[in-house]
Amino acid sequence: MAEQDKTSRRGFLAAAAAGSVLAASGAHAQGAGARAADKAITELPDWSKYLGDGVADRPYGKPSKFEAHVVRRDVEWLTASRQSSVNFTPLHELDGIITPSGLCFERHHGGIAEIDPRQYRLMINGLVDKELVFTIEDLKRFPRINRVHFLECAANSGMEWRGSQLNGCQFTHGMVHNVMYTGVPLKHLLNEAGVRTNARWVMAEGADSSGMNRSIPLAKALDDCIVAFRMNGEMLRPEQGYPVRLVVPGWEGNMWVKWLRRLEVTDMAHLAREETSKYTDLMADGRSRRFTFVMDCKSVVTNPSPQAPLLAKGQNVLSGLAWSGRGTIRRVDVTLDGGRNWREARIDGPVLNQSLTRFYVDFDWQGQEMMIQSRAHDSTGYVQPTKDELRKVRGVNNIYHNNGIQTWLVRSNGETENVEIA
Amino acid sequence: MAEQDKTSRRGFLAAAAAGSVLAASGAHAQGAGARAADKAITELPDWSKYLGDGVADRPYGKPSKFEAHVVRRDVEWLTASRQSSVNFTPLHELDGIITPSGLCFERHHGGIAEIDPRQYRLMINGLVDKELVFTIEDLKRFPRINRVHFLECAANSGMEWRGSQLNGCQFTHGMVHNVMYTGVPLKHLLNEAGVRTNARWVMAEGADSSGMNRSIPLAKALDDCIVAFRMNGEMLRPEQGYPVRLVVPGWEGNMWVKWLRRLEVTDMAHLAREETSKYTDLMADGRSRRFTFVMDCKSVVTNPSPQAPLLAKGQNVLSGLAWSGRGTIRRVDVTLDGGRNWREARIDGPVLNQSLTRFYVDFDWQGQEMMIQSRAHDSTGYVQPTKDELRKVRGVNNIYHNNGIQTWLVRSNGETENVEIA
Repeated sequence: MAEQDKTSRRGFLAAAAAGSVLAASGAHAQGAGARAADKAITELPDWSKYLGDGVADRPYGKPSKFEAHVVRRDVEWLTASRQSSVNFTPLHELDGIITPSGLCFERHHGGIAEIDPRQYRLMINGLVDKELVFTIEDLKRFPRINRVHFLECAANSGMEWRGSQLNGCQFTHGMVHNVMYTGVPLKHLLNEAGVRTNARWVMAEGADSSGMNRSIPLAKALDDCIVAFRMNGEMLRPEQGYPVRLVVPGWEGNMWVKWLRRLEVTDMAHLAREETSKYTDLMADGRSRRFTFVMDCKSVVTNPSPQAPLLAKGQNVLSGLAWSGRGTIRRVDVTLDGGRNWREARIDGPVLNQSLTRFYVDFDWQGQEMMIQSRAHDSTGYVQPTKDELRKVRGVNNIYHNNGIQTWLVRSNGETENVEIA
Repeated sequence: MAEQDKTSRRGFLAAAAAGSVLAASGAHAQGAGARAADKAITELPDWSKYLGDGVADRPYGKPSKFEAHVVRRDVEWLTASRQSSVNFTPLHELDGIITPSGLCFERHHGGIAEIDPRQYRLMINGLVDKELVFTIEDLKRFPRINRVHFLECAANSGMEWRGSQLNGCQFTHGMVHNVMYTGVPLKHLLNEAGVRTNARWVMAEGADSSGMNRSIPLAKALDDCIVAFRMNGEMLRPEQGYPVRLVVPGWEGNMWVKWLRRLEVTDMAHLAREETSKYTDLMADGRSRRFTFVMDCKSVVTNPSPQAPLLAKGQNVLSGLAWSGRGTIRRVDVTLDGGRNWREARIDGPVLNQSLTRFYVDFDWQGQEMMIQSRAHDSTGYVQPTKDELRKVRGVNNIYHNNGIQTWLVRSNGETENVEIA
């Protein structure tokens, strides 16, 4: 249906054409924008004239065709193959604290396992009184909880250790997402199996072709881990571990084993590939930190950012995300001038434990260059450090656990770049 | 890929085959279930042997092919056309409190308007100092908030006024959804326009082909209404009013005007079709209640329910939703025996204002027939009434505002029916 051909002049919005356009939005009243506006408010568009699709056309809905640019993106040179790679959340295209399931970042080690839920089984073995095997329906018969938690890859922002590398918060910070999980507290399943007194760890293993596995201290497993089968109300998405994944609140994403098929209770850590060769932190002196499980307090300004420049002078909204693996976000500071002046951001929306938290700064912009940073404080009193403070302690060999303060340079034309303050 | 052909025997799970299957799930250890289980734990499935899809294959993800039955459904005989109809949320297939955007119930009066956001405009006119026109980018420059709210159609459960009609909570209660909205408090836009002292109402009008409009009292508009452009983090879905809808917390869904194009500030109600001929409550004496905006406190058991029977004896989880347009949910009672005994349900997950709230009852089932009901209490002290209590006051001419207690009969084979207790 050709939109131009079918539009006709109608007077019903003519009063508005002569009315004042929002004073603050000067940029929209100039050039091509103004011509578009005139047409938009004096001509009745097709969607006001013709019946649209009916209800039977969309049993499972999807975004508008005009939002086709809002997608996960990978970085092809980053990994050897697409089956062992990362697809980043478009943080600059989102708001609030819930990540839509279709846009949650994904990381695979052997591609996406497509599991038939009727054939799915979860086994608990090792240092237990009874070895057990559960179907999905078995799991759904245990007491169930709902929790909103962020999942962050330990390597999120890892490419930034040696200086600014990637131009967009989707790539610098997009290995994080935040959804509501529904599942069974792991402690219920372990109690059903009967954990022996010499048990100290639980090895979680995936059913994907990589058999990805990690060791989890028994104390954490019995504390707050969840054997989850739902995200944002519906069953897990295939790339998020359908039908069952482990949720390890506040800890590095690699431990949240997807397509979970086995939990082996042991007296020592499994020392799997993913906790020795990988997901250990190589220090300047050649030694490695290991078992650095907790994701420290961190934040990032998502708008403006390199993929989301400032569009107009006058009133603007700066938006960002803060999170901590140790508790809740207590405060976020924002600077527009590279750290000379800080103001407290306005936190809005639910402030939940080990969850993304949304903050805003409403500000007036007159075209000045800005160096924007955010600095989060969590409920333990911890304050997000600068990248240089981190480098002093950990060197630059490491790719994991970079929770340093990020800097965006906003140019006078609104374009925004990833920079570091020397 | 033929799953049967490619599976091979492997010993790695052999120990589990001899181990005990969860004692509570007796039903799964019998008949076909047991044979499937044996195969599933002794043969390595394809998804553990072959690489799956890589990250580039799913820029915007979707559910597993095994979840294809989890969809919105309409009732063809209910309305004259699919462009003026309802598509119901599959409540029995969901958990937690967030409704996935693709499964949110939809109600249209002229089909789904597919709006080009570059051509979108919102006008404020009427009793204001300055008539204003906003683009999407203009709206994004006002201070922004995030709120989780339920949206319930006033006609939800309306077909049940005269007795049990529809066999499934998707159809009896599925005209409700619950998402996190991001948008601008309406008061900011009205303040920008300057509301005149004689103003009392705001008429909200949609840009769809029906030009759907409703009157909202100015006090509500200035209190908590939101001009929303996002749901669950991303831009609104087309069928939910992309790019802009009104959010009217706790009030009937018809007032949450989608594809919002105009707000006219007036000194009296517009007396539009949707608040006179429709969305008024015809009483037994032939008079109508009008402006019955608030959605009263209500609840429903989503599992078990007619579309989700009980599958096995032993430990089971009853799950349900409660909500109130007047505040938060304070308590939910559940009976399994038609009201002779009530127990307090376990509420789990965030308890938010004017939001769906999830409750559970963990119970043991030995095959007895059950009459299941839930009864919600809200923060004002209001207690959800029975259907008969409602009928005594309002008769049975009406289809709106049925918040009565729902009854499911669970048969000894687990099958569940929509019934009424005489």
